[in-house]
Amino acid sequence: MSSSSSTSPRFGSMISAKLASPPPSLLLPPSPRLQGRRLTPPSCTPGTPAALPSPGPDKEPEREAAGSGSGSATTPRSPAQLGSSQLHRWSRARAHRSGRRLEWPTIRDRGSGGASSPPTPTRPHPSSDEAASAAAKVAVEEEDGYGVVGRDEAAKSIYMVSDGTGWTAEHSVNAALGQFEHCLVDRGCAVNTHLFNGIDDMDRLIEIVKQAAKEGALVLYTLADPSMAEATKKACELWGVPSNDILRPTIEAIASHIGVAPSGIPRSSPSRKGQLTEDYFRRIEAIDFTIKQDDGAQPQNLNRAHIVLVGVSRTGKTPLSIYLAQKGYKVANVPIVMGVNLPKSLFEIDQDKIFGLTINPVVLQAIRKARAKTLGFHGQKSNYAEMEHVRGELDHANQIFAQHPIWPVIEVTGKAIEETAAVVVRIFHDRKQKCAMPRISKRVAPIRIYDYLSEMVNTHVEYQKIFARDF
Amino acid sequence: MSSSSSTSPRFGSMISAKLASPPPSLLLPPSPRLQGRRLTPPSCTPGTPAALPSPGPDKEPEREAAGSGSGSATTPRSPAQLGSSQLHRWSRARAHRSGRRLEWPTIRDRGSGGASSPPTPTRPHPSSDEAASAAAKVAVEEEDGYGVVGRDEAAKSIYMVSDGTGWTAEHSVNAALGQFEHCLVDRGCAVNTHLFNGIDDMDRLIEIVKQAAKEGALVLYTLADPSMAEATKKACELWGVPSNDILRPTIEAIASHIGVAPSGIPRSSPSRKGQLTEDYFRRIEAIDFTIKQDDGAQPQNLNRAHIVLVGVSRTGKTPLSIYLAQKGYKVANVPIVMGVNLPKSLFEIDQDKIFGLTINPVVLQAIRKARAKTLGFHGQKSNYAEMEHVRGELDHANQIFAQHPIWPVIEVTGKAIEETAAVVVRIFHDRKQKCAMPRISKRVAPIRIYDYLSEMVNTHVEYQKIFARDF
Repeated sequence: MSSSSSTSPRFGSMISAKLASPPPSLLLPPSPRLQGRRLTPPSCTPGTPAALPSPGPDKEPEREAAGSGSGSATTPRSPAQLGSSQLHRWSRARAHRSGRRLEWPTIRDRGSGGASSPPTPTRPHPSSDEAASAAAKVAVEEEDGYGVVGRDEAAKSIYMVSDGTGWTAEHSVNAALGQFEHCLVDRGCAVNTHLFNGIDDMDRLIEIVKQAAKEGALVLYTLADPSMAEATKKACELWGVPSNDILRPTIEAIASHIGVAPSGIPRSSPSRKGQLTEDYFRRIEAIDFTIKQDDGAQPQNLNRAHIVLVGVSRTGKTPLSIYLAQKGYKVANVPIVMGVNLPKSLFEIDQDKIFGLTINPVVLQAIRKARAKTLGFHGQKSNYAEMEHVRGELDHANQIFAQHPIWPVIEVTGKAIEETAAVVVRIFHDRKQKCAMPRISKRVAPIRIYDYLSEMVNTHVEYQKIFARDF
Repeated sequence: MSSSSSTSPRFGSMISAKLASPPPSLLLPPSPRLQGRRLTPPSCTPGTPAALPSPGPDKEPEREAAGSGSGSATTPRSPAQLGSSQLHRWSRARAHRSGRRLEWPTIRDRGSGGASSPPTPTRPHPSSDEAASAAAKVAVEEEDGYGVVGRDEAAKSIYMVSDGTGWTAEHSVNAALGQFEHCLVDRGCAVNTHLFNGIDDMDRLIEIVKQAAKEGALVLYTLADPSMAEATKKACELWGVPSNDILRPTIEAIASHIGVAPSGIPRSSPSRKGQLTEDYFRRIEAIDFTIKQDDGAQPQNLNRAHIVLVGVSRTGKTPLSIYLAQKGYKVANVPIVMGVNLPKSLFEIDQDKIFGLTINPVVLQAIRKARAKTLGFHGQKSNYAEMEHVRGELDHANQIFAQHPIWPVIEVTGKAIEETAAVVVRIFHDRKQKCAMPRISKRVAPIRIYDYLSEMVNTHVEYQKIFARDF
């Protein structure tokens, strides 16, 4: 299926103008337009360490970029801020944009300190070639593994560009990269991913494609606005950047199936506000419930759970519960601890919703040892990670499982949480459907948020006013 | 980009044979092959209510399908169970398959009771046309909104088929459906989605495509195995089912970019076990941390968080924390409550990682009223949802935010959690990068699970033995 080739007229000339201008040389000083912006430290040029932005009133533009600002919570927007056309959105986004954006990357040393110790550049006066090559790596500060990009000369870059949250692009690319684990695991083919989300104006889009051309990156995008998608395709063709529209073929297949044209409006757009799905509210409720039920808390509520997980410590009950809660299932988990009775209510509820988790004892011991180390238990006397105790506890769990053959028992050794979750959800739905061809079925039902809230508290008109004003 | 056209020789003849056989009529009795399986209640034929499977030894096959069974946690597999070729996997999956699978759907009444009250069929003796039409809807039991598919004659079906967990297919389809909200919100175009995950053998795949043809469904798939993907494409063409491979173009774009062929091995395959990413372990740790820090708990650990969220009750701090934790960020959230001092440690940590949340007071009041109703507070005296109190608390929060202008303040009214998360993550990474072009960068680094565990506890050889045996 080919991408839509329609380019909205209001962006048409703009795209042509952008595409015609050659990519600026990396060594040119920042353009006067960029220099004039607020929040851009004067020292912020390639090869120079960044000055830390000072806290204070200068932070305001970022606060605005983050939303409507704290003030808008209680005061209505000025008429100039109202309206929802794409053009208006685009110019407003540009007005709100922090001055720090669109600057060229500064070369940082990997493994340098946090915000309190600005990194020193490794090559303060790079030659033209060196600078171009090093800048292509865009190494940034390290702190707990975040924002880290190794200065691996051989690493290939993948740019993910989205006019929404970018989570779909990220999820799809991560799944696709799973097909290259055989090569990634020994760094045979090193890959760095870079997510650019909320990209809703043409200027930033074109800058990103230019930068991708410099870095030799692949551009994978999810752009709801067809004119933005088309511009990306054309710009990538012009600058020889390989690219692919991740979601377009799926959207077009659905459009053709249901006989309705897609809206072309990105998730973050004001005109898509106020519409959330039933599924959304169910998820929020499920997360609230699941957190309260963690680790055997409130056993009197087990009957209200959709799914109850039972297993010894470190079989992954908590992350699995949370993962399932994000999917809208209310989950309770009950730990099996030697010498502690399971709550009576566990045996009184519908036994069809209880799942046992088990794991290889050697692997469990390793996980517990690692856990004990993290928690600083290593000096203390504890049988938590002793093999005899680990085996004993697993045997005890297996005896309980044997007494309740209706509970499916899932072996979690080496399984990622999302894999175990897939098994749990499949069995859960199979049991509900009994004879039907096994499947996980959902009705797609977005609702207007004011319909939802007003149904709950009967003040429909009030919400319509609020939402009409704010969105 | 076109799908790979290579069909593995071992599946080639099988596909041809499958494709040549016409779709069986819905009203034919189940084939003898299907009838002979365990766990299939004799009454389980179209139009007849399902007998509930009795608990007991009959449950064993399902337990096996769920994993390697509880026994395999302590006992090694028999040599016959070892090996990882696709052919072997396929026949093993078929051997493990529960007898209930691949049966034709039974017509259920929407809104019927739970497992304890089997539903009565609405049309016990349907005519041929009626049965075909009604079966196409596959209505199943309702319980808290799960497994519900409305008997909406106009609803279009979307089948999502995966040989892995199916989460990528689900995520992509949900994102794509966001482009049709304008029509879905008033049920102008009703859609039901059906996820078939872990589909790793040709028999089941072909049955699903046949069923899609009957239901008039669109088939969207993520099948890592190229022979399965090719078979789906061909089968869909043969039976006139519209279809699209969701991930193939993205995988091919990456393959071409990094110059490596994709493995073609699905996530659930034994040969992909034992390889998890650094990102994975970081996520598990982040979830553990975040749950412990919920609702202002353990303020002495705020310095260990990547992100600290501050806001009044019901601004979505908890679900936002959990969402970010799933992405690998350690999150703490601190509630603002009138008359309660914020913890001293909040002002001693790096202020760059603190984010304020605010919301429209009328909407907040509605959410709190709904919350109070859910919790059964409605009869009790409480100022929690009174407008004066709500406004006062938000004013108090805004004063605190004004005193700390370095904290970005995010307006969450009408925003979905994932949208707020996108804003938080963007600002978080922008602040780390300072002058660099804003982006969210990650190094892709899968590691072998035994490397991870052995590094933690220094028993490398032992794990290699375990993983060599079990996977």
